[in-house]
Amino acid sequence: MLKIPEHQVAGHKASDGLLGPLIDDSGRFYKPLQGDERGSREVAFYTSLSSNTRVPDHIRKFFPIFYGTQILEASDGSGLRPHLIMQDVVSGHLHPSIMDIKIGSRTWYPQAPEDYFQRCLKKDRETSSLSLGFRISGLQVHGNKESGFWKPERKAVQKLTADEVTLVLRKFVSSNSSADPNLVPDSLFASSVYGGSTGILAQLLELKAWFEDQTIYHFNSCSVLIVYEMESVLKGGSSGAEVKLIDFAHVVEGNGVIDHNFLGGICSLIKFISEILTTP
Amino acid sequence: MLKIPEHQVAGHKASDGLLGPLIDDSGRFYKPLQGDERGSREVAFYTSLSSNTRVPDHIRKFFPIFYGTQILEASDGSGLRPHLIMQDVVSGHLHPSIMDIKIGSRTWYPQAPEDYFQRCLKKDRETSSLSLGFRISGLQVHGNKESGFWKPERKAVQKLTADEVTLVLRKFVSSNSSADPNLVPDSLFASSVYGGSTGILAQLLELKAWFEDQTIYHFNSCSVLIVYEMESVLKGGSSGAEVKLIDFAHVVEGNGVIDHNFLGGICSLIKFISEILTTP
Repeated sequence: MLKIPEHQVAGHKASDGLLGPLIDDSGRFYKPLQGDERGSREVAFYTSLSSNTRVPDHIRKFFPIFYGTQILEASDGSGLRPHLIMQDVVSGHLHPSIMDIKIGSRTWYPQAPEDYFQRCLKKDRETSSLSLGFRISGLQVHGNKESGFWKPERKAVQKLTADEVTLVLRKFVSSNSSADPNLVPDSLFASSVYGGSTGILAQLLELKAWFEDQTIYHFNSCSVLIVYEMESVLKGGSSGAEVKLIDFAHVVEGNGVIDHNFLGGICSLIKFISEILTTP
Repeated sequence: MLKIPEHQVAGHKASDGLLGPLIDDSGRFYKPLQGDERGSREVAFYTSLSSNTRVPDHIRKFFPIFYGTQILEASDGSGLRPHLIMQDVVSGHLHPSIMDIKIGSRTWYPQAPEDYFQRCLKKDRETSSLSLGFRISGLQVHGNKESGFWKPERKAVQKLTADEVTLVLRKFVSSNSSADPNLVPDSLFASSVYGGSTGILAQLLELKAWFEDQTIYHFNSCSVLIVYEMESVLKGGSSGAEVKLIDFAHVVEGNGVIDHNFLGGICSLIKFISEILTTP
């Protein structure tokens, strides 16, 4: 029985009869394949990743598990359509706090058609991408019972300044984010979510080290997804915070060159998160 | 007594009665200030750098020493014009091998005027910048007595592919570069110039570590200059190879964000040089 994902913060949505991803109860995510080269490139990427022995084992945890493709009834009722099947990375979470961050100051790839290039370039210049090396594509935060749930408008979070991004990254790990917007975020979960040997910063640094070396793929217009569960944090111990890479419709071959665009962007994000951990 | 620099591999040249930099016998380099904001921005950068206590001492060696400005007769005979005075980084060298590498896949800055932005974007897409994260702006190599001197045409070296850049980086540290172009470069000086605790790679890694942290300046359209003297290498011991940053006419304030564009580019260059050191 397929249903519409409850915890989606960015991308096309299947709600309101549109074409979008579906999930099942066993923890699988069904993403409709775009009919053009985007769909075939994403399948090609997952297929290549599965079999590429040059990708180290400790890096594979950053990618959703890939289960293949399947022809399914599309969410918009338009009929049968091939879907990518992969791990639903928020499956098992009750109240996940999620942030989708599109990495890179440039979201287009060198060989892109002129109209796609112009569209991406315009958006990169209008959003945080050009100045910060990444843009927040969407987020939701579960605070404590009193403050509840915060899911800001997508268009607005894409265009934040450096100071505003710092504030959002603080609110993302605060228990009082959803209350009065003028309230100073308490950053209560910062050290358990961002810090520590298994926290978000450590995971991003592990990814960064790989990007300094790997010349297999260039991850154009790809996102880092950060997920954690407030309940786990409050119980103490590990926050279970996870970094996942998603959206591979514009991945191209690296041809012996590192992905300097992705690397620069992830280093910028790392700097923002480091500052939050070191500045009380 | 001012004269035209002998060892200039990129940038405007004072030869043939044009406007360009001059040098003297005491190791100073006189760069005519462009009348527009480029000139004022470069002076502003050197002035800021001189007094900025947040720039660590071990990073200052990567910048030419700044001696101020002076009004001088311009090289093109157009009359008096303010000049930047700085250290001539190849002074004291008899046969310097020099490479000028413009860092960054993007040479324009976010607030650039539309026509400048369009011109830079076009050039970045036509040259290696977009794909590699840097482009070689020019170079000269002194080989042994038989092979002599090699100074390829500037236009050609800006558009190299990854494999061609690797070949040029190998020829740059070879004793037989200038002979038959079909000859395999011997990479005789690779380990002494690129390798070792004081070599080019170590210096680039030191710069990289600073760029992962510093949010003071964004070095748009800035170059890394690599200089060494073949005679020093042949004598054994340290090659005296040096990395310098030059050309600060498009440096803007970092405003709390790392220079992800420069950082990505320098990481790409580091990967190329590392590969040469590890691949015989």
